[in-house]
Amino acid sequence: MTTHVADGASVDVVMDDIGRRARAAARSLSIASTAAKDAALAAMAVEIRATTPEILIANALDVADGKAKGLSGSFIDRLILTEARIEAMAAGLEAIAALGDPVGRVLAAWDRPNGLHIERVATPLGVIGIIYESRPNVTADAGALCLKSGNAAILRGGSDALRSSVAIVAALRRGLAKAGLPEDAVQLVPVADRTAVGLMLAGLSGNVDVIVPRGGKSLVARVQSDARVPVFSHLEGICHVYVDAAADLAMAEKIVVNAKMRRTGICGAAETLLVDRACAATHLAPLIAALQAKGCEIRASDEVRALVPGCVAASEADWSTEYLDAIITVGLVDGVKGAIDHIEAHGSHHTEAIVTENAETAARFMNEIDSAILLWNASTQFADGGEFGMGAEIGIATGKMHARGPVGVDQLVSFKYRVRGTGQVRP
Amino acid sequence: MTTHVADGASVDVVMDDIGRRARAAARSLSIASTAAKDAALAAMAVEIRATTPEILIANALDVADGKAKGLSGSFIDRLILTEARIEAMAAGLEAIAALGDPVGRVLAAWDRPNGLHIERVATPLGVIGIIYESRPNVTADAGALCLKSGNAAILRGGSDALRSSVAIVAALRRGLAKAGLPEDAVQLVPVADRTAVGLMLAGLSGNVDVIVPRGGKSLVARVQSDARVPVFSHLEGICHVYVDAAADLAMAEKIVVNAKMRRTGICGAAETLLVDRACAATHLAPLIAALQAKGCEIRASDEVRALVPGCVAASEADWSTEYLDAIITVGLVDGVKGAIDHIEAHGSHHTEAIVTENAETAARFMNEIDSAILLWNASTQFADGGEFGMGAEIGIATGKMHARGPVGVDQLVSFKYRVRGTGQVRP
Repeated sequence: MTTHVADGASVDVVMDDIGRRARAAARSLSIASTAAKDAALAAMAVEIRATTPEILIANALDVADGKAKGLSGSFIDRLILTEARIEAMAAGLEAIAALGDPVGRVLAAWDRPNGLHIERVATPLGVIGIIYESRPNVTADAGALCLKSGNAAILRGGSDALRSSVAIVAALRRGLAKAGLPEDAVQLVPVADRTAVGLMLAGLSGNVDVIVPRGGKSLVARVQSDARVPVFSHLEGICHVYVDAAADLAMAEKIVVNAKMRRTGICGAAETLLVDRACAATHLAPLIAALQAKGCEIRASDEVRALVPGCVAASEADWSTEYLDAIITVGLVDGVKGAIDHIEAHGSHHTEAIVTENAETAARFMNEIDSAILLWNASTQFADGGEFGMGAEIGIATGKMHARGPVGVDQLVSFKYRVRGTGQVRP
Repeated sequence: MTTHVADGASVDVVMDDIGRRARAAARSLSIASTAAKDAALAAMAVEIRATTPEILIANALDVADGKAKGLSGSFIDRLILTEARIEAMAAGLEAIAALGDPVGRVLAAWDRPNGLHIERVATPLGVIGIIYESRPNVTADAGALCLKSGNAAILRGGSDALRSSVAIVAALRRGLAKAGLPEDAVQLVPVADRTAVGLMLAGLSGNVDVIVPRGGKSLVARVQSDARVPVFSHLEGICHVYVDAAADLAMAEKIVVNAKMRRTGICGAAETLLVDRACAATHLAPLIAALQAKGCEIRASDEVRALVPGCVAASEADWSTEYLDAIITVGLVDGVKGAIDHIEAHGSHHTEAIVTENAETAARFMNEIDSAILLWNASTQFADGGEFGMGAEIGIATGKMHARGPVGVDQLVSFKYRVRGTGQVRP
């Protein structure tokens, strides 16, 4: 594909061509059998493994350039590939092959009094554009999830991982070809130019059906603001844990510590702890101590600070901040009603947890809060497609349309109606 | 509500206020019980009936102005209300009350090996903006469908029906108040100014979740091009009937005539007839004769005209035209593959029918065509939420996201995940 660019074609021409190829591939994929798609995923895994040396060389060049450019350690860590990471990529393709095929599934079926039989059946979305940062593993993951759900993928990865992605996509396409599916089912945007992203967001003349951004807040914000096609995304995960007066304190400690500290950099990490004012005297200090014991910084309301000395004062902005770090904001609320109001005012509609032994209180929390995921007596860090049993996920969405929460293969489909008659006409 | 305008507030201020009120009402509605919503719908029907004289007076003023402005007969026919039409409106509200509540329905539920119990449960979308032409009955219908599905409605009807709509909405809001639900669940944009539409399409500062346009192609095109929020719509219904060589000719005649001529002005009316070249000698002339007998003009390919004299020549544009009139384009194709290719090239992804006795051919047609509704041995005029058994519909959508085909109360919902644990943390 890089020959387009070598030939000196403009970005517009390259991207238009990618869009047209994707649409053509999508039409074939939409009627590809489950067996054909699974065979392709298996062949892609074989090719990834067989190409390990080439992928490692390409990646070493990306990493060397990245280091020379002074990219941060965490950036380099996400960029770097090892034999083990490449094997995990191949195993991921096989795991996606093992999932059920979401396409063709009859979602509902019923008969009408006039004898018409109506079925709502799952169909692919068409062409999915994925815009992500320099994480080479997303290349294989996203391509495979799209293929399994019968969609063509247009991948636009971060420019610092371009050589790695080129090597990975070449392997994926060899697998597709060996299995007799169109290679253009997975295409990589071969240019680092940001114009390409703009063209994808504009929909490539109707040849992109949905965009999935994966990356930091500024990337997602740009996609959400500029896209002219639907977007599956979340801007941030300002996740809350509410500890109710009826909570079991030991359970609450375990959940709060896990929700905040298991991994602080993921979108399901808790950013705010709300404690019921009714149990502040007994529950607040132990919860804060448990967090501090794990190295978490506490930013707290004045009321909390009066009860538990040694906390930093929370600013107004802290209540709406996704730290993605070992920092948490802590405040008191008046029962579940107070928690609901606080979360509706400051949350990001991603994931919230309540700890309580009171089923009614829990039901109210889960019914009234308008977030994608509500948990009762469990950690917010379960906000993940794998943990939900969906297999891999392409991302987590907080919009209300179509896909919400973890977006796995079952969410990467649309539907249509098939109606079977025996000559019925409408009176 | 009109006092805002009388007070001289700008359209921006009025619309912003409407958006905020709608969001507040939506929060109440999202947790309103089924009984409360149904009681409100019943009370709205009572109020509509009780207000019949006032509605008729308001409508008479609209109609008189419309006639003075020289609006067309069909326009006036859609605008005009009678006692019978108002009764039908009230009965429609009761019919919507009788539908199942889509909110709170558990769409899926499963358990994870770690003991977490996960439910996907239907939730309202939030605030729905409906932009429609001067058809007063849409006011009651759309408001009721939104209420049943727990959503707040912002109605922006055609300016020529403004007085009628004001009277109808006043009755609906009295019903809401009597049932103890927020009046702002149904709001009417009280200004004829087109700026209001632009503000709705921009999403009223995040206070509109989805827009549903109901009306002609130019209205829908403007909404699709300008909206910054999701839109449930179809631009046009270029619906096809394909008569296969394995069709029963008598059934094909009945279906083709009904699909085209039962009502020519609806989106599910057929606009193109495709006949299998293999049965042209036997099927083509009778099908054309049957259509002509009902007064249908035939625009045909040269090949068809050579076989059946007396047809007008179809231009290239005819193959992609939604006539909404007693005109049909007729062409020959090579079997179901030819039909699929023609429809993918010229269709609008709305509704297509195949007439055949061959189940394999029918399956191919229904699997390979990417339209919202595919029918086998039945008329395209069944493309309707009522005919699908969904109760009333707010419209028909041809997008691939979220809602597709007839959009009834079951489509006016989103979902969230409720996860029940016993203290699980993520390892």
